Amino acid sequence: MQAQTHDGSAAGSAERRRIRTGAVTGPTAGLAPGNVQANLAILPAEEAHDFLRFAQANPKPCPVLAVSEPGSTALPTLAADLDIRTDVPRYRVWENGTLIAEPTDIASFWRDDLVVFALGCSFSFEQALLEDGLEIRHITQGCNVPMYRTNVATVPAGRFFGPLVVSMRPFTPAAAIRAIQITSRYPSVHGAPVHIGLPEAIGIADLSRPDYGDPVHVNAGELPVFWACGVTPQAVIAAAKPRFCITHAPGSMLITDIRNSRLSV
Amino acid sequence: MQAQTHDGSAAGSAERRRIRTGAVTGPTAGLAPGNVQANLAILPAEEAHDFLRFAQANPKPCPVLAVSEPGSTALPTLAADLDIRTDVPRYRVWENGTLIAEPTDIASFWRDDLVVFALGCSFSFEQALLEDGLEIRHITQGCNVPMYRTNVATVPAGRFFGPLVVSMRPFTPAAAIRAIQITSRYPSVHGAPVHIGLPEAIGIADLSRPDYGDPVHVNAGELPVFWACGVTPQAVIAAAKPRFCITHAPGSMLITDIRNSRLSV
Repeated sequence: MQAQTHDGSAAGSAERRRIRTGAVTGPTAGLAPGNVQANLAILPAEEAHDFLRFAQANPKPCPVLAVSEPGSTALPTLAADLDIRTDVPRYRVWENGTLIAEPTDIASFWRDDLVVFALGCSFSFEQALLEDGLEIRHITQGCNVPMYRTNVATVPAGRFFGPLVVSMRPFTPAAAIRAIQITSRYPSVHGAPVHIGLPEAIGIADLSRPDYGDPVHVNAGELPVFWACGVTPQAVIAAAKPRFCITHAPGSMLITDIRNSRLSV
Repeated sequence: MQAQTHDGSAAGSAERRRIRTGAVTGPTAGLAPGNVQANLAILPAEEAHDFLRFAQANPKPCPVLAVSEPGSTALPTLAADLDIRTDVPRYRVWENGTLIAEPTDIASFWRDDLVVFALGCSFSFEQALLEDGLEIRHITQGCNVPMYRTNVATVPAGRFFGPLVVSMRPFTPAAAIRAIQITSRYPSVHGAPVHIGLPEAIGIADLSRPDYGDPVHVNAGELPVFWACGVTPQAVIAAAKPRFCITHAPGSMLITDIRNSRLSV
């Protein structure tokens, strides 16, 4: 991860303090606006190398913002004062693929062999699209982004493999071109779309029936635009059933000190 | 125009010398490969300001590479030794919208009030697409790019106004996204597409019947991608019927010393 600056540190630090003290235990949408929020995956060292190889081979669905030292609870490139055991509102703890707990801190589950992965999330590029004046349909409709399993395979690494999952946002052709330009500048948060138009070409039979999230209206004169989605690594980890694993609870993200705009290239 | 360097000066100078001496009197495709070739419009000073305003307001169809001093036959930012009276293989001379001559030099038509416009051309971005490994259908088919009058109006300036003309290249969705990324880096040669998919949305009823150029195959699983086209200013000038005007003959372009890659931002 290139960004080493923490211009959003005051807001980020304040929100993590509220989370750490239990004042926030749910979704983080709208907290520390403009700061990068990250998906979380924590794996034992024995799995971590294969997962990092998976991410390296699949940077669009699995963009790595930071990886911890084994056993370290810090991610110093994302925030100076971050403790990963307490600074996410709600976690999910998994054993052999089974959810065993949804705690608000993971101090009691911590192990010296754990490696923390912070993964980029589409919140960052959506802010850039909104600031450019583009309409994001699921935000307008007040629902989750629609997501679809595709017939496109990710590049496997060890036990980590599975289909690419994509999110979809409809745009007019001119807005779609602009969205491609903008998101191309954000490779660390999924980057440019992977597909546009022609959903059947990537194995999506019915846009109105997403595999995750909610359906949104696609108006006449609009094209569906598809981005690689952070649900891909979540689904891949779930399918791999590692002996032990911790993730964030859906929507309950890691708030960093990095400004979204700092992710642009 | 930002580029002041002439790394392609040896090849450019050699080809312009062949043109100047009459050894080349026709199309310039393939000459000085990798060097920028430009469309040409020469207008009296009384028309030049409105035309430059038109170009400023419509940079995608009308990207200005260089404008001469009134009466000057030089374009020093494009080539050190260029003489616009002799260095284009074939010209078209117009009076009140009527073609009056197609000479190989315009020394006898030269006037002290003429202003020369060199306009960017899609040859430059097509080279970047080809070098990225993309297929350009009309090149594969060995024909001209298909071009269409749209129902999109340009921004008028003085007597210069008319519809946007676009060129079309079909691509698979992934290749279309890549083509948008690449051509976005070339704003001085039409830049990013203006439209993708849905030809009817810009007033194109039938892709197989272009208004200029030749039709190309659009395969199943491909989207038509539309770029603003240099025929737009040609059509706008023709419709304006200036008292006097000189353009290049179709395909018979101005060869510069600038490398295409130097146009990328």
